[in-house]
Formats: sequence, C-alpha cells, structure tokens
Amino acid sequence: MNVFVVNCGSSSLKYQLIDAQSEVVLAKGLCERIGIEGSQIVYKPARGKRSGDKIVIQSPMPDHTNAIRMVLECLVNEDYGVIGSLEEIGAIGHRVAHGGEKLASSVVIDDEVLKDIEECCELAPLHNPANLIGINVCHDLMPHVPMVAVFDTAFHQTMPEKAYLYGLPYRYYTDYKIRRYGFHGTSHSYVSKKAAQILDKPYESLKTIVCHLGNGASICAVKNGKSVDTSMGFTPVAGLVMGTRCGDIDPAIVDYLVEKEHKTVHEINTILNKESGIYGLSGGLVDFRDIRKGCQEGDEKCLRAMDVFMYNIATRVGAYAAAMNGVDVIVFTAGIGENGDQMRKDICEQYWSYMGIKIDDEKNRLSGEDVVISTPDSKVTVMVIGTNEELMIARETMALVKE
Amino acid sequence: MNVFVVNCGSSSLKYQLIDAQSEVVLAKGLCERIGIEGSQIVYKPARGKRSGDKIVIQSPMPDHTNAIRMVLECLVNEDYGVIGSLEEIGAIGHRVAHGGEKLASSVVIDDEVLKDIEECCELAPLHNPANLIGINVCHDLMPHVPMVAVFDTAFHQTMPEKAYLYGLPYRYYTDYKIRRYGFHGTSHSYVSKKAAQILDKPYESLKTIVCHLGNGASICAVKNGKSVDTSMGFTPVAGLVMGTRCGDIDPAIVDYLVEKEHKTVHEINTILNKESGIYGLSGGLVDFRDIRKGCQEGDEKCLRAMDVFMYNIATRVGAYAAAMNGVDVIVFTAGIGENGDQMRKDICEQYWSYMGIKIDDEKNRLSGEDVVISTPDSKVTVMVIGTNEELMIARETMALVKE
Repeated sequence: MNVFVVNCGSSSLKYQLIDAQSEVVLAKGLCERIGIEGSQIVYKPARGKRSGDKIVIQSPMPDHTNAIRMVLECLVNEDYGVIGSLEEIGAIGHRVAHGGEKLASSVVIDDEVLKDIEECCELAPLHNPANLIGINVCHDLMPHVPMVAVFDTAFHQTMPEKAYLYGLPYRYYTDYKIRRYGFHGTSHSYVSKKAAQILDKPYESLKTIVCHLGNGASICAVKNGKSVDTSMGFTPVAGLVMGTRCGDIDPAIVDYLVEKEHKTVHEINTILNKESGIYGLSGGLVDFRDIRKGCQEGDEKCLRAMDVFMYNIATRVGAYAAAMNGVDVIVFTAGIGENGDQMRKDICEQYWSYMGIKIDDEKNRLSGEDVVISTPDSKVTVMVIGTNEELMIARETMALVKE
Repeated sequence: MNVFVVNCGSSSLKYQLIDAQSEVVLAKGLCERIGIEGSQIVYKPARGKRSGDKIVIQSPMPDHTNAIRMVLECLVNEDYGVIGSLEEIGAIGHRVAHGGEKLASSVVIDDEVLKDIEECCELAPLHNPANLIGINVCHDLMPHVPMVAVFDTAFHQTMPEKAYLYGLPYRYYTDYKIRRYGFHGTSHSYVSKKAAQILDKPYESLKTIVCHLGNGASICAVKNGKSVDTSMGFTPVAGLVMGTRCGDIDPAIVDYLVEKEHKTVHEINTILNKESGIYGLSGGLVDFRDIRKGCQEGDEKCLRAMDVFMYNIATRVGAYAAAMNGVDVIVFTAGIGENGDQMRKDICEQYWSYMGIKIDDEKNRLSGEDVVISTPDSKVTVMVIGTNEELMIARETMALVKE
C-alpha cells in the first residue's frame, strides 16, 4: 500500500508518496507560495521514465485545494507519474504540529479528532490551522481514503511532571495549558529507535540523547523508549539557540525590550522567533554553511555564533545526562547535525570527554549516515543518523490503518 | 580594624560590624520598614555585657539616614554597644547589586564609581538605587571613613562570551547591555574558595559547582578560580525555580500571558518575580520548611514543587559538568542547601550516581557546616559549606583599604 504523507504549512505544502511495504519513496516534493503570486510545485519522481528528474511547474495556486490537486495530478501524470491512478493511494498521513495533552499519539482522523486538533490551534496558531486545511482538502479530494494525524508533540507526552512544569502559578497550567510540550517528536522518536536498531540493543533498555540540529533545533532525552525531557518548550522558540529563534533567555528581557524598543510584546515575540538565534548573533546569516565558511575564515561574528550554538548543545546534553542519571548513546541528526563533522568533534573533545567519550576522527569525517562515530572503548556511543520524519509518518499511518 | 558591612534595600538595611583581623562579628542586625509605619531596628551584640541578646527597638525611621544613625548609636551605646566610638570603624563595605560590565571587581568608592553605580540603576532598578542611598548616607555620617563597593555581579564577569550571550540580535547586547550577568557572586566566590581551602587544594586547579540555594537560588560553575557560567541571567528571575521567581521559562509565555490575563507585560513580569516559583507551584507556600513538612505528609502540591526544584538543580549541575568538561567538587550552600539533607541525598542518588558520586549518609545527616558529605571513593567531592557574604564583603573591603 502507498501512503501519501502531507506536511501542510500556511503557504507551503511538502509531500511524499511512500510504498509502505518496501519503504521506498515513489515521489516527493513541495508546493511553494500557495495563495501568493509566483506559486510553483516541485515534483521529484523516483520511478518511471522521468525517475530522478526534478520537475518544476509554475502555476497559480490560489489555495491549498489547488496545490494538492496539482500534486495528485503529478502523481498520476502519464509522462512523469509514479502511480496509475489515485486508487493506489491507500492512506494519507498528516503531520500536525500540536496535539496538546489530549492527542498523545498518532490517531485515525475522524470528526472528534478534527475538533481536538482545532482546540490546539491556540497553542500553535501558525501551524495547526494550516495542518487542518491540508486535512480538509485531502478529505474533499479523496473522501474514502483513511487519514492519520501524526503530532510533533506526541512523543514528548511521556515526560514526567518535573520536566514539563514551569515554575509558574499552577493555575496557568490548569487554566491555560501552559507547560513544556516539546516538538520534533517524530524525528526524536524515529532517530532514537533507529539508534537502538543499529546497535542491536533493546530500545527499552537505553538512555539516548538525540540532538536534532536543523534550522529549528531541539534535544531530547529518551529513557527506556520514552521521551523524558526535551529542550523546546511551550512553543518552538525555547531551548537551544536556533537559526532565527532565540532559545532560552531570561523572561524579564521581554519586558525590558518592550520598553527599550518601543514595541508591543507581540512584536518582540516575533523578533525572538524570526530575527534572533544564529541570525541575530552572526549579524544576518541564516544558512549554516555560511556560518561554517565564516568560521574557517576566522570571521568574528560567525565564530561567536558557532561558539554559542555548540555551548548550548554541549550543556543541554550534560543536563540530560543528569536527568537520566547517565547516558548510553548520543545521536546527531538533521542537517547541521548530520553534516557538521568539525562541530561534532569539537563538542565531543571540548565538553564531553569527562563522560569517557572518545571520537574516531576518521569515522566522524566520513559523513555517511547511520554510523557510530565514537571509538569502541568510548563509554558513550556517539552516532550520526539521518532523520526521516516522512517515513516515520508513513509507518505510523500504516500501523493505524492496518488495525 | 573593624569593617562596617552594609546591605541596603529599599525599605530595609542589614548590617554587621566585623573585626577584620579576627574575622569575628561584633554585632549584627537589621532595620525594617524604613520610611513605613512600624519601623524597627533589630540589634544583636556579640560582645560586652549584653552579648548574645537580641535587642529590638521600635522607633520611627522616616529615611535611611535615621536608620543608619540608629545603628551607629547602638554600636556605641553605653549599655549594649560593642565599640567605644565611631573612630573604631575603619572602613565600610557596601553590598551593591549590579556593577554591569564596567565594575568587574570590588572597588574603593569615589565620585567616578558612584557615577558608574548610578549608570547600572537601569539594570537593577529595585536594588542599585537603594544601595546608593546607603552609600550616600554613610558618607554623610562618616565622611572620612573609606568605603568599598562589593558587587553581586562582579565575580561572574569572567564568564566567556558563549556563556553570557543570549541568542538575540547582537545589537541588544551592544546597545542595551542585555546579557547574562548572574548574581550571588559574593557567595559563589566565598564558597568556592572555602571549598578549596577545606580540601587543601589550589583554588586555581579545581572545577567546582556551587549550588547557592536560598529563597533566591543560583548555581555557578567555577573553573580554575573563575566563574565560567551561572544560572541567573540578565536579572535574578532566571535560572532555577526559586522561592517566588519562575526561573527559566519559554519567553513566548510572556506574550501568551499578557493576552490571557489581560495584564501589561510589566505586570506579568512582576508575577514572574513575586508569585511564581515554589510559591506558585505549591499553591502559596514560601517557607521551604513548610514544603519539607508537606512532602513528609505526602502533600501532592509540596511534592510537586520539591520535585521540580530538585530536577532543576540536578540538571543544571549536569549542564555545568559539561560546560567545564568535568567537575571535581559540588557544594551546597545557603539556607535550603545547608539544611536540606534529604534533598541532597535524593539528588545525589537519583541523578548524579552516573558521575561516580557517592554520599556518606551519616555525614550528610549531621547538618554541620563546612563538611564533605561524599564517601572517600566518590569520584566527585560533595560538600556543605555555610555561606558568609558579609565576611566576604569585609575581606574585600579590607584588601582594598589596606592597599
């Protein structure tokens, strides 16, 4: 059976069609600038006569219905399609940002689930409404295909109270649901399981720390197969310094900036999300490859941003080693984690040798995926694993649809 | 020479008179409700015929000048005084909350220093103005006595950039001086030095983590005699969950609460400082003895608050072990740290045994000060040390006045 995986943003839509049995990606791509002038679809078939091509079609997409219709047309296109008809799509898996406390695992979408996702819009005002649009459009176009929602927060719902409660008046938790939720759950779940599998150890026996380092970045402590803490918080702005997000700061800074910058608290919040982090520290660089290049050239701003970023990762992992009273495996994943061999080496040597961690330089340099980069006598196994959220969504979808 | 140590708050004033040679406290006490109805002075002489008594005098103190005048009168009083005349006060040491980046160590107060302290008022609007009043009043009453300012922030000025920079637009640091400053510096400095002294090891060779756990609480990583990171931030609200302060939270919560609670960002900030932390989590308890009692009785709210507090401490220490790539000594100090034997045991056993830490139950229970509570084969030495900020201020004062 083929699973259509959809990740719907406010003006974009990422998709993959995955053969659930072989776990092969049949096609993938994205729609950009939906509802904005200059919209286009990128489509990459992985079988058929155009296999390996990147097809870009510029075409007006006034809304998400048009976008998904275009994707489906691509999938069955005579020239570059990968399936004969839409009948070959057996299930649809939707990535949904926020499931709150109620939606603590993936779930087959029905009316009640839709209502629950709607209720979480307040907690993820930028993402959940877009996810809902994707769900509704798919339902309209393929009403008989079962759909599953996979939540970015769900994996972290196993966190104990001591990790998810903030030091705030308790009624903020009961009345407004203010707590740590954490995100990137699909990735942390996939990567921590994959690590156990590669090491051929029972998932339930390991203490694993996953460093998901992309433009958004978070770290997760996984003990005996359960997330016990993670760095993102009530929203994805907290935790590590990220591409454009500030990570943890003194909350009193918000008040101070409102006064100094003559801005509303909402405007400051936008700055914390969009103009801070590596971007803010480096004076305007977003792409981590530019930061790396700057560091090699001795650029002061880039070195500063890199230094802060590495220190954030190093100390958060130290914190989670204490949270679990030890750590067996540390995994680097996502773009920056998978490609930053120098960064991995520096962090391990400068900060983690006290834990008995030793890096095998050569294994670390060979930037292959899904490898152990620590030496055999290292007391903690350090790995690089390629994350695959879409595959995880397809798996979760299949598991629920089969039942 | 006797040093008069002054810690001036907005409506209170704590003082000690210390014989700098013997380091004996001759008298100590506080003035309360200065400028408010019902003001009183508490005075405890430690020598003379009333030695050991606690003398309370209720008397109007319209301002700090009256308060300090009353303290001085007590010190030279015929009946309960401890010195013959004010001539016996050789120097005055003032605790000053914020020294910014410029005042990075204790300093003899002159006009320029006064100006610098004034400039830091914006960074510590509740504390620095009160400290300045104390300085000015003492100068008026004892114009020829040299005065020294000892800053709560100074010890942390050795932090590297990676530890003090937030992931914010860099101009917020250059324009508004927004960075991590850290507080409790006098205590962290005193305690980390004392630990080295007790262990008979060179201060410059140790990696020490000091847990200053009072109503305000902070943790400091001291490497080779220098603070390299600390949990409080731009203001004292950040870091650990404290008596009434929230500690680190997702900064986006501020925006969310402004909307939900229909309050200004400033009002929310006040809640984060005064109605949060242990108080907020426990539903109104402030005194840690009540929390401990509640825990023994199985009270859910108290157990929750204690659990969060311990987890905060445990993980922060883990983070700083990574920050220094190891730790030799962990010290508990201040009220909760010095008296919380059960808490110390629980933290060490639940969270830190991976570091090779072993607690000697009996030594830990005997709540003496300045003792090692870990076993001889523990890989990290764990200690309890009584903090003494006033003595440290007296020492710093003497050192500068002697020069």
